[in-house]
Amino acid sequence: MRIGLDVMGGDFAPEATVAGAVLAHKELEQDNRIVLFGDKNRILAELERNNAYPEQFDIVHCPEVIEMGDSPIRAFSQKTHSSLSIGFKFLKTKKINTFASAGNTGAMLVGTMYSVDSISGVIRPCISTLIPREDGGSNIMLDVGTNPDCKGDLLYQFAILGREYARHVLGIKKPKVGLLNIGTEEKKGNILMQSVHQLMKGSSDFDFIGNIEGEEVFSQKADVIVTDGFTGNIVMKQIEGMYAMLKSRGLSDDFFERMNYENYGGTPILGANAPVIIGHGISSPKAIKNMILLSRDVYNSNMIKHMKRAFRKYKAVNPLK
Amino acid sequence: MRIGLDVMGGDFAPEATVAGAVLAHKELEQDNRIVLFGDKNRILAELERNNAYPEQFDIVHCPEVIEMGDSPIRAFSQKTHSSLSIGFKFLKTKKINTFASAGNTGAMLVGTMYSVDSISGVIRPCISTLIPREDGGSNIMLDVGTNPDCKGDLLYQFAILGREYARHVLGIKKPKVGLLNIGTEEKKGNILMQSVHQLMKGSSDFDFIGNIEGEEVFSQKADVIVTDGFTGNIVMKQIEGMYAMLKSRGLSDDFFERMNYENYGGTPILGANAPVIIGHGISSPKAIKNMILLSRDVYNSNMIKHMKRAFRKYKAVNPLK
Repeated sequence: MRIGLDVMGGDFAPEATVAGAVLAHKELEQDNRIVLFGDKNRILAELERNNAYPEQFDIVHCPEVIEMGDSPIRAFSQKTHSSLSIGFKFLKTKKINTFASAGNTGAMLVGTMYSVDSISGVIRPCISTLIPREDGGSNIMLDVGTNPDCKGDLLYQFAILGREYARHVLGIKKPKVGLLNIGTEEKKGNILMQSVHQLMKGSSDFDFIGNIEGEEVFSQKADVIVTDGFTGNIVMKQIEGMYAMLKSRGLSDDFFERMNYENYGGTPILGANAPVIIGHGISSPKAIKNMILLSRDVYNSNMIKHMKRAFRKYKAVNPLK
Repeated sequence: MRIGLDVMGGDFAPEATVAGAVLAHKELEQDNRIVLFGDKNRILAELERNNAYPEQFDIVHCPEVIEMGDSPIRAFSQKTHSSLSIGFKFLKTKKINTFASAGNTGAMLVGTMYSVDSISGVIRPCISTLIPREDGGSNIMLDVGTNPDCKGDLLYQFAILGREYARHVLGIKKPKVGLLNIGTEEKKGNILMQSVHQLMKGSSDFDFIGNIEGEEVFSQKADVIVTDGFTGNIVMKQIEGMYAMLKSRGLSDDFFERMNYENYGGTPILGANAPVIIGHGISSPKAIKNMILLSRDVYNSNMIKHMKRAFRKYKAVNPLK
């Protein structure tokens, strides 16, 4: 398989991205090839600094760069020679099998929609985070930022996307879906979550176990935690903040160490019609390496095929039910 | 002063509540008197178990009990001989100066509105939590549960309530107000928070420093963190969950120990026209003790008087601005 990497994306690009690609190369099976999109001279210089050979990679020269502050739509449509634009062209024409970037998340979403589009039936794609739990497993929480305002049918679809991810990428046979809320009773919560609870109750699309509360995101009560992108983003960043404080106070252990974003490498855009992986803006070489390995795992899991199948069966729910 | 305590409220009442009152009695100044509302025989038995003398307390016999599962309005209006109903009658007629309970939060809110009411100009009262920060101080976050659905003007008022609390109870001279959001730029967030940001920007009612993100709730960026009751409740419970995991893994330290709810004892109902303090349902004797000491501090701070003054000056903001 051919794994595309936006070398110019991320706060520490291209140094961290190339270093991460070199680390990933050492762990990948021989039939996997990393395709680097970015400024060729800078890539060659970074490869040399990392004692790696240019022939170990495919390099696609892209003279333009999309900055974190750029407007996503304008960036993607006007900077057609950027690593991001060219990467998506390659993905669309199947010259690469996956595309990953730690750059501008908005531009990645726009790029996805303008090139490979979303899976038929998916209202809006979303992104996720993994939350470690004490039994050694991980829960997936989604959305964590792309949809700050959600309607009920969107949240219902997140449950399907999360269930497929949990099944095929995390290897959980019968994932349980929970709704993040402020009480376990079905009448609890804001108006949106009360109505979503009713939509999900008795669903035949997934195994809904009811509401879960803030402290239960770390428990095994639900494998898939559904929430809107506003709440999910705040919860995710709070975990990052807690982890950072633990580290700075010398208090981590094996379990809390799993809250380090570097270990996950990123999140696929769930609902996209091809494997597109987004990394954290501050990605280190280790995080980039894991983003590349995640790209491989997502591709090998046939997640997209399984999601397509799920949405062929899916009948639109009425959010006003 | 006379500090009222609902002896029957809380998961471990009346054992934990009476034990907490005995602990508080030892720390209170002589001119402070704890008034216990509840089943007299059970109170006397618990006092004996704690080697305390009945004459150290005032006891008001209340034969009925409001359960955690009771409908708040029905409980308060029908169980007129409950500790909660009688306690509020005493508060309204100034036979006590403050009233505290670790029981049914909804019933406490209803009791407040039906007896002492909210401060003139306050749309809806709310509750708060204190979040420790590494410099030794604490941030106040509000709302954390009573208003899961908020409009902009309500969130604007939370800022005023939180500012007064921070000033007069926490002793912060010039509290900075931040809006919990998913990005620091003013255009970030869901539609509600984008509009609230515009309402708060340039406010003369408080010192607004802009958005703060999930990981920044532990920082000194803002002293007062404004959010809706849905998001705030999830953030608060997540901190509780993290603290519990740290403890169970033997990883706490002085700083994280301050996340233990027991140290705070509870939250006043902010915007109520008298000091009403709500404790955590699982309150231990130590938590009850601190709830009683908090009652004293809130009363002595003249917080209600300061809030009334703030709302006399306050001109209603237009949430559709």
